[in-house]
Amino acid sequence: MSAGSADAAPTVADAGEHRIIALVRAQLAAPPPWVVIGIGDDAAVVEPARNHLEVLTTDALVDGVHFDRRFVDPASIGFRALAVNLSDLAAMGATPRVALLSLGLPPSLPLADLESLVAGLVELAARHKVTLVGGNVTRSPGPLFLDVTVTGMAKRRKVLTRSGARVGDELYVTGTLGAAAAGLSWLQAHGLPVDVSTLSIALQAAILRYLRPEPRLRFGVIAARTRAASACMDLSDGLADAIAQLTAASGVGAQIDADALPVDPAALERFGSVDDAARVALSAGDDYELLCAVPRRARRRFEAVARTTGLAITRIGVVSPASSGVILRRAGVDTPLPSGFEHFHR
Amino acid sequence: MSAGSADAAPTVADAGEHRIIALVRAQLAAPPPWVVIGIGDDAAVVEPARNHLEVLTTDALVDGVHFDRRFVDPASIGFRALAVNLSDLAAMGATPRVALLSLGLPPSLPLADLESLVAGLVELAARHKVTLVGGNVTRSPGPLFLDVTVTGMAKRRKVLTRSGARVGDELYVTGTLGAAAAGLSWLQAHGLPVDVSTLSIALQAAILRYLRPEPRLRFGVIAARTRAASACMDLSDGLADAIAQLTAASGVGAQIDADALPVDPAALERFGSVDDAARVALSAGDDYELLCAVPRRARRRFEAVARTTGLAITRIGVVSPASSGVILRRAGVDTPLPSGFEHFHR
Repeated sequence: MSAGSADAAPTVADAGEHRIIALVRAQLAAPPPWVVIGIGDDAAVVEPARNHLEVLTTDALVDGVHFDRRFVDPASIGFRALAVNLSDLAAMGATPRVALLSLGLPPSLPLADLESLVAGLVELAARHKVTLVGGNVTRSPGPLFLDVTVTGMAKRRKVLTRSGARVGDELYVTGTLGAAAAGLSWLQAHGLPVDVSTLSIALQAAILRYLRPEPRLRFGVIAARTRAASACMDLSDGLADAIAQLTAASGVGAQIDADALPVDPAALERFGSVDDAARVALSAGDDYELLCAVPRRARRRFEAVARTTGLAITRIGVVSPASSGVILRRAGVDTPLPSGFEHFHR
Repeated sequence: MSAGSADAAPTVADAGEHRIIALVRAQLAAPPPWVVIGIGDDAAVVEPARNHLEVLTTDALVDGVHFDRRFVDPASIGFRALAVNLSDLAAMGATPRVALLSLGLPPSLPLADLESLVAGLVELAARHKVTLVGGNVTRSPGPLFLDVTVTGMAKRRKVLTRSGARVGDELYVTGTLGAAAAGLSWLQAHGLPVDVSTLSIALQAAILRYLRPEPRLRFGVIAARTRAASACMDLSDGLADAIAQLTAASGVGAQIDADALPVDPAALERFGSVDDAARVALSAGDDYELLCAVPRRARRRFEAVARTTGLAITRIGVVSPASSGVILRRAGVDTPLPSGFEHFHR
């Protein structure tokens, strides 16, 4: 499986496990003092955060399912693998602490790509003060896969769940919807490298949103700490799925105003009609914005979270009794919101 | 990708993500009270163990690399995916608490196999009081893979690392060596189902050792608690690799007595000559026994750990100064221990 020729770029197959681990470690900053034992032993050892609960999540990205190496650069793959996990912590209002990275590497993967992949992950980790304390490296006889586990901390009674929404709460989303889908659609059509000079500002931003999603950690943490939201969930599987999950977990219904959805300009540009863009905004994942239920008495506080974080928020509907179901209101006409958009293809 | 025919057994592709998650949840016992939020939200929330450090590890198993579905039954796959992680905790002297399971499923995987796989994992989890609190399910366009992350707890200053071995300490291994390799070799030649009636007792046990490795958790925990060992590591990549890693991390050398290695009777039976069996005992992974460095003043305590846990221990050598290297002594002749046996193929 070795390259054979001296000219060929070295691949993972040329390196061996120890060199791959060394390559990862070389990119890491010194760990904080509460990391008692980091990478290099049978397991990592960490001092728990005092007076906090521990929050844990794991998410895998697989080549050909969650990204495509033909149009997602290695650094973005690493960045996204951590981002999707941090987004889950954001939705719980938890502050991240440590990450574990499990890599399944095709032997033909260039070592330079692996180095970039780790660099992308480390870049986002540094931004959010996440320490990579361990992981695993194995060969993959199939696609490249990355499985990241992240732990975080949250104060007791200040954890944001999916199940706290109550009738009368208002539903908000952060940011805009459909941007990542527009970016993905452009990348699928044109591939890398991106020549931004020919693109609108909105589409440039949308491509970046797909490649480097920004987990809304500060928003989630402050919303949880100030009790500005009664329930929260990230939009990793799209808004329609999030609404279905959050209402089911809370035992409520919802009325969503289709015309209020903050459809990203790039989605309008890329998907043509307003209707198509709205459908994308409801069904597309990858935006990693947050859906929050906000009690009316907490609205001011919620608006303050948006101001503090500089993130736009949009009221998209209201929580109703379970008996009235989950309804999408568009131009005055009510239809049941297609709940599923469940996709084992992701 | 659906089976198409009503007669065909349903596969993962027929189920969808929510049904797969429901299938996993259906097999779980009620979580202990310190699990604040289990499976079903964006992340799990756990109460940390008071006055303990937290120990974290992750390990992935990939079809065609770490196991082969042609001769490893689904329940054993699930069992092993957790066992390899618990073995890492055992080597740290940590008591496991929670697990996260990340599954990459080929769409053609029969749902019944998935159910068995989860059952195997849950069986071992129950035995060691590990709570499955979360995970991830995705499609795999390639092989089946399972990535398990486990957290555990250990008392401060009672964590067993690889780096504590000192010159003059004696080196011990638990159990016997080469059993799993003998079992694997038999399975590779004959496949499933195993007709045990024709096999020796030793080979029957060896096959079971490969399919259902027993992490030496109790041994590791008691050895750590009683300070019976100065350093410890599991044999997941074989004894030679473990000796190389432990001596390097401790900054010491070692003299290993090849004739003292506790070669499993099944390895002798399967691999013929004593020399071949000893080579297998040095290089083969999958036994998941422990290598421990034991200060001479702690020998009695270490022997007591063995008695308490009912596990055999064998003195295989002694820790020497780094300058003398890692030496294998066989029939009075010293040779450098082949340190590597590094294999990216695993």
